[in-house]
Amino acid sequence: MASAAVSYARENQKRFLNELKDLLRIPSISTLGEHKDDVRRAADFVSSELRRIGMQNVESISTKGHPLVYADWLNAPGKPTVLMYAHYDVQPPDPLNEWITPPFEPAERNNNVYARGAVDDKGQLWMEIKALEALMNSGNGKLPINVKVLVEGEEEIGGESIAEYVRKEKAKLKADFALVCDTELFAPDLPTLCVGLRGLVYTEIEAVGARTDLHSGMYGGVAPNPFFALIEIISKLKDAKGRVLIPGFYSKVKAPNAAELKAWKKLPFNEDHFRKTEVGSTALTGESGFSVLYRTWARPTLEVHGMPGGFTAPGAKTVIPARASAKVSMRLVPNQNPGDILKRFKAYVKKLTPTGIQTSVKVWSKGPACVVGTDNKYIKAATEAMRDVFQKDTVFIRSGGSIPIVTDFQDVLKIPSVMMGFGLPDDNLHAPNEKFHIPNFYRGIEAICLFFEKL
Amino acid sequence: MASAAVSYARENQKRFLNELKDLLRIPSISTLGEHKDDVRRAADFVSSELRRIGMQNVESISTKGHPLVYADWLNAPGKPTVLMYAHYDVQPPDPLNEWITPPFEPAERNNNVYARGAVDDKGQLWMEIKALEALMNSGNGKLPINVKVLVEGEEEIGGESIAEYVRKEKAKLKADFALVCDTELFAPDLPTLCVGLRGLVYTEIEAVGARTDLHSGMYGGVAPNPFFALIEIISKLKDAKGRVLIPGFYSKVKAPNAAELKAWKKLPFNEDHFRKTEVGSTALTGESGFSVLYRTWARPTLEVHGMPGGFTAPGAKTVIPARASAKVSMRLVPNQNPGDILKRFKAYVKKLTPTGIQTSVKVWSKGPACVVGTDNKYIKAATEAMRDVFQKDTVFIRSGGSIPIVTDFQDVLKIPSVMMGFGLPDDNLHAPNEKFHIPNFYRGIEAICLFFEKL
Repeated sequence: MASAAVSYARENQKRFLNELKDLLRIPSISTLGEHKDDVRRAADFVSSELRRIGMQNVESISTKGHPLVYADWLNAPGKPTVLMYAHYDVQPPDPLNEWITPPFEPAERNNNVYARGAVDDKGQLWMEIKALEALMNSGNGKLPINVKVLVEGEEEIGGESIAEYVRKEKAKLKADFALVCDTELFAPDLPTLCVGLRGLVYTEIEAVGARTDLHSGMYGGVAPNPFFALIEIISKLKDAKGRVLIPGFYSKVKAPNAAELKAWKKLPFNEDHFRKTEVGSTALTGESGFSVLYRTWARPTLEVHGMPGGFTAPGAKTVIPARASAKVSMRLVPNQNPGDILKRFKAYVKKLTPTGIQTSVKVWSKGPACVVGTDNKYIKAATEAMRDVFQKDTVFIRSGGSIPIVTDFQDVLKIPSVMMGFGLPDDNLHAPNEKFHIPNFYRGIEAICLFFEKL
Repeated sequence: MASAAVSYARENQKRFLNELKDLLRIPSISTLGEHKDDVRRAADFVSSELRRIGMQNVESISTKGHPLVYADWLNAPGKPTVLMYAHYDVQPPDPLNEWITPPFEPAERNNNVYARGAVDDKGQLWMEIKALEALMNSGNGKLPINVKVLVEGEEEIGGESIAEYVRKEKAKLKADFALVCDTELFAPDLPTLCVGLRGLVYTEIEAVGARTDLHSGMYGGVAPNPFFALIEIISKLKDAKGRVLIPGFYSKVKAPNAAELKAWKKLPFNEDHFRKTEVGSTALTGESGFSVLYRTWARPTLEVHGMPGGFTAPGAKTVIPARASAKVSMRLVPNQNPGDILKRFKAYVKKLTPTGIQTSVKVWSKGPACVVGTDNKYIKAATEAMRDVFQKDTVFIRSGGSIPIVTDFQDVLKIPSVMMGFGLPDDNLHAPNEKFHIPNFYRGIEAICLFFEKL
């Protein structure tokens, strides 16, 4: 690791962390309209820094939604070109009362930085930018490879704008491979590359019964109740054993191959420890006959995230609401087509809708699963860089989450993605007290420097 | 109707209505802690007026919850004593965006006054007070019978304080009968007395799965989801045909007698018209083999009012919430004991709770059903007074709603209640755009005057 870039990165760790904290203070919650200006502020923060460190052609690209940030540096003839991806938007912070320190006031505890977006994905975005800075400064204003950077602000809401932009700007974005920093290490101190992601179809089933809210005394027993209808419907979408009951849901599912399944069995993983330390429940659920890793990485699921409507404040209100809805999502695995699954879902919801109720299905986001190959020189260089930083062999895992852009890079730009992530399993993604382990922030910067230098 | 009190009431209609509007401007929402002072303001408004019109021993009685207001006038020796009841608290106004004019800014349209609490129950409370004023003024400071007034501010949240007070102050509250103005006319211009009410057990099932909110990508397929657990449980509490499945739920149900059922069939009621005009849904639901009136008046039900937890804002958040809850209530009919039903409900919920989830049941309110006899002189005088005001024969109905105090008056004070109400079926109780038909406000005042004069 005799790398000048790594030395530079080590000398500037404190400053890098303080800059990250400034970015974390911006509540760039992409799904909430009232934070639109904050999302733009985060985009501006990113493009200013790209400009400052010497990247060229920096631009903030307006979209129907939140802006994309593009930058490049293409002065390494004969060297490969990377397309670096990350996102600067974050999930909503609720429930607020469960945060130990406020979600947009970064706080350090036990060598972690706590804030919404710390690990997902501002911390990892900042690793990419700081690696570029370190390479640029230690290389007399030159990078070891050609670099294109594309950062989005809609990852948490489906990434529609970047998907459209990738389709439109194939030539501009052309690269040899993509670097995506939005995943995690399998275990602390275990160098990990992610080679598979689940897809996602996120819907909201809206149910309408009476014309107006009704008193449950006067009308209870005769008026259709949209909540009860949603409950009837959803109870028939998945059984108590975790099997999704939508007709044809599993028909296209492609299982992992034997070698991959065998490798998963060698990973340091104990289901009971996972249950106790990560989930914290009295039992795990889901399909029997599949391991926890199999269930979360390579089996599709269906979840309910919230049921807006009716009376939700503390206390009693005897209302039969006129309307209610349920946020229901499905995680998809390779070969399940999101459009096909959505069609089956809609048809089944319609079929299950009881008399007196009208339902409709709104789609909030939709993207397929993705598995990337491990037999290219980029994955190989990344594997070595990770090993150098951690001094351990790198493992290949999948993730149950969804990064639709990886599929787009593969299908539209025809390039493989290196998913090099530095989160930890207990980093509380999308939950209160999200954190990023500060040593992993620094390791990420070093690994990216070494990775690019190896190419 | 050559009554001086009625003449006085007619001369002062405009003023009476303006006073009511002042009371309606106070957002006395008993279930919301932040409105505690408003609830007290409404209580003060009522006690001031009782004092002003010449009632004696007016007092505001502090309770663990919201204050009771008591007043009396007991200077009619040899005459019967009435205990007049109403409530000054109201339901929350949400959903706010469906109100045509704001809920606490009373507005007149089409001879109705629109506001939260207009008919339930401030308008009817004001009828009682204004009838007393009219009788007092036209009788040279004397009332035709002895009067005790007891007004509460917790009717919408279970009425615990008044129930306790009635048990404690049996002697003070002793009367020959009670007058309860909190029900409705069966149809416009049809004089109606209510002789039966359903009971209520209102609960919140709280479900807990993981220790913290989890990302549905990482954990979907293995982490227990409290929403799905609630859905599984509630889907088994009532079937699609409206039959409650809690073991033993129907075992004590007492059906109405043949004469009462026969009288209901003669009421001017068309189920299809009711569906179209009142409910506004494409179909009615509930147990087959029972008419709409039977289902709402004399059959128990189970309803879901809201499911707090998770993500409910517009957009997508891929969260498996650590906890969620469901507001579930049951309406009870004669002979169903609320304590017994609650016990059965809790046991069944526990039994239905899936692995990995802990549930607990919080009780927000609990009261039995009640049927009052029609063979006493008070009901008879009320029947005549209503006929005189409306110039039509009075009908006896039940209500599907719950007024637990009526049961307490019967069981604790051993007195019958006359439920004389002037709401209309389309008055939007507990819903947006609640209203009170202004001519019914005036008729109510006159009917109470005549009723008391007849005794």
